[in-house]
Amino acid sequence: MSKKVGSHTIVFTNKPSIIGYSATAGIKEGCGNFKDYYDVILEDDLFGEKTFEHAERKIFIETIKNSISNSGLKIKDIEILVSGDLLNQIISSSFSARELGLPYLGLYGACSTMAESLAVGACLVDGKYMKNVACCTGSHFSSAERQYRFPLELGNQRPPTSQWTVTGAGCTIVSNKKSKIKIASATFGEVVDYGINDVNNMGAAMAPAASSTLVHHFVDTNTKPEDYDLIVTGDLGKLGSEILIDLMEREGYDLGNVYNDCGQMMFHDKQKSYQGASGAGCSAIVLNSYILKKMEKGEYSRVLFCATGALLSTLSSQQGDTIPGICHLVELIRSEE
Amino acid sequence: MSKKVGSHTIVFTNKPSIIGYSATAGIKEGCGNFKDYYDVILEDDLFGEKTFEHAERKIFIETIKNSISNSGLKIKDIEILVSGDLLNQIISSSFSARELGLPYLGLYGACSTMAESLAVGACLVDGKYMKNVACCTGSHFSSAERQYRFPLELGNQRPPTSQWTVTGAGCTIVSNKKSKIKIASATFGEVVDYGINDVNNMGAAMAPAASSTLVHHFVDTNTKPEDYDLIVTGDLGKLGSEILIDLMEREGYDLGNVYNDCGQMMFHDKQKSYQGASGAGCSAIVLNSYILKKMEKGEYSRVLFCATGALLSTLSSQQGDTIPGICHLVELIRSEE
Repeated sequence: MSKKVGSHTIVFTNKPSIIGYSATAGIKEGCGNFKDYYDVILEDDLFGEKTFEHAERKIFIETIKNSISNSGLKIKDIEILVSGDLLNQIISSSFSARELGLPYLGLYGACSTMAESLAVGACLVDGKYMKNVACCTGSHFSSAERQYRFPLELGNQRPPTSQWTVTGAGCTIVSNKKSKIKIASATFGEVVDYGINDVNNMGAAMAPAASSTLVHHFVDTNTKPEDYDLIVTGDLGKLGSEILIDLMEREGYDLGNVYNDCGQMMFHDKQKSYQGASGAGCSAIVLNSYILKKMEKGEYSRVLFCATGALLSTLSSQQGDTIPGICHLVELIRSEE
Repeated sequence: MSKKVGSHTIVFTNKPSIIGYSATAGIKEGCGNFKDYYDVILEDDLFGEKTFEHAERKIFIETIKNSISNSGLKIKDIEILVSGDLLNQIISSSFSARELGLPYLGLYGACSTMAESLAVGACLVDGKYMKNVACCTGSHFSSAERQYRFPLELGNQRPPTSQWTVTGAGCTIVSNKKSKIKIASATFGEVVDYGINDVNNMGAAMAPAASSTLVHHFVDTNTKPEDYDLIVTGDLGKLGSEILIDLMEREGYDLGNVYNDCGQMMFHDKQKSYQGASGAGCSAIVLNSYILKKMEKGEYSRVLFCATGALLSTLSSQQGDTIPGICHLVELIRSEE
C-alpha cells in the first residue's frame, strides 16, 4: 500500500516518535522571547574555540549529545545522523559526524534543513530501516555573515529588509519507541523562484515556496489551516510572513490566528533585528525548545512545521541568478496512545 | 520486521528497480576508456553557457531529462529529485530542480553523492513513499578547480598525487516498476579521518572510509569479496585504490580481481591525469554508462557500488582541519524475475 497521498505528501503509518530533543542558543538568542525554553545558552559566541566555524561545530556536537541524553539513549544507540548546515560543504555537520563516530547522511536544504532532516529521518524509522535517528541543523551568525555577506569587521549597515542569522543548533531524536509526540506526515517541497535577487530580502524569496508547500499539503491531506493548532514557518521574518499570508489568501486559504513564523517570534522589538531571525538554526532551536515543550505540555496537539530555505550561493548571485526558495513540511501530532 | 542487518546495512525487501539511467561526459572524459558507453559527450565544456557553473547546471538538467526519457517516463512521473553536487550550496542540483519543477531533496556527500542518493532513493521507493525517484549527481572540472583549488588561468602545476575532477553528470531512475537491475541493499558510511591534510591527495583521505564501509557491509551481510562480480569504489584513484587494498588486507579481506575504482578506470595512460579521475561526476558517469550497461547485458550480476567522498571545504583546510572521508555503498543485483 502506497504511503503517498496526493502529489507531494507522505503519511507515516507507523508514526515515528520524537523521544528527545535539545536546543543550544547563542547570546542574543538567549536574551530573546524563548530564553526560558533553550537547554543551553552560550555565554561566549566562540564557545571557547578559536574560530566561529569551530564554535558552530562544537555547538552541533554538544546539541546532538544533549538530545541523545534527553532521549535516554547513548550515542551508540543512534543508527544515523541526518544533518546539514549553511557552511560550504556542510562542514559543521560532517565534522560533527566524525567526532561522534556515527553513520551519516549529509543534507543540504539551507534553512529548510530541520524539516528536511525530520522528513528523511521519519522515512528511515517508519520504513523500519532504522530504530533511532538524530536529525540536526544549526547556524552561527558570525560564520554565516562572513561566508554569505561581509566580514563582521567591515561593520556594514544592514538594510531594513534584512534578518539576523541565528547562532544555535537544534537536534531531534526520531525513534520507533513510544512517545507522546509523533511525526504524522511530511510534504517535500518544490524549488520555487519568483525572481527575487536581493540577498538581503530572503523572506520575500522564500515565501512563495512556503505557500507552494502549504497548498500542496492542504490539498493532499484534504485539510485546512483551522485543523491545526499551530502552523509555523521557518524564517520568513515579518515581511516574508506578511507576503505568505497574502499569497495564501490568493490561493483561498486564511492562515488566521494559527500562523506564526519562527524568525518573527524569536527576538523582541528592542533586539533590533529588523525582520527578525533567520538561518538554519532559527527554526531548529524554536522547534527543539518552545514548540516541542508546548506540545509535551498539551498546549499544541497538531502542528505544521514548515522550514523554509533560500537555495542561493554567493556565486549564483554574482552570476546574476535569482534566489530559489524551498519549503519542506512535517506534521507533528500529540497523542496519548 | 526490521530491514536493518548488522550495524550499518539495510536490506530492501521490495527490491527497488533501476528503470533508466543516463550519463553525460565532458570532452576529456569522452576521449577516455568509456567513450563508447556515455549517452552524451560534450563538444564544448561550456555547453553553450557563459560560465562553467551554468554549464554544470545545464549538464545536470539534460542528464536528468535523458534518464527520465530512457526509463520511458515523463518528467511529471518523477515524484522527487534526490541530488547533490560539489559546488557551494549545491547550486547545480537546486537550480536543476527549479528548472524541472520537481519536489527536491538536496544532499551533500561530496563525491559519495551518487551512492548516497541511490540509497535514499531506494528507501523512498522500497518503503512505498514514492514510485519513481531521480537520483543524480555530477561535477565540472573547471568549476571545481576554481572553487576548491586555483583559478585555471593561474596555470598551477599539479602534484603527482592529484586527480582530475570529471566534467559530467549521471542520473538513475529508481522505481517500483519491474526491471532486471535492482538495488538489493545499502550501507551508510561513517565519517573516517586518518589525519590526511594534503588537499591534493584525496585518494589517501578517502580510502579509510571505503575500507570502513566495505568491512561493515561484509560483516553485516555475512559476505566476502568473491561473492560479488565487481566491487567498485568512487574515485580513490590509483594511489587511493592501492591504499584500500592494503587496508582491506589488514582487515582480513582480499579484494582480489573483482575490485576496481572508477577514478582509476576512466582515463587511459596518455590522458595525463596522474592518479586518475575524481569528482562527484566520476562514479556517477561510470555507473550510469559502463556498469549499468554491463549489468543489463548480463556481464555483471552482483555489484557493490561504493562512492567515496572527501568532506573538506577550503575553509576547513585553511583552519588546519584534516580531511574527513565518507563512503556510502549500494548493492546492485541483476535478476530476470
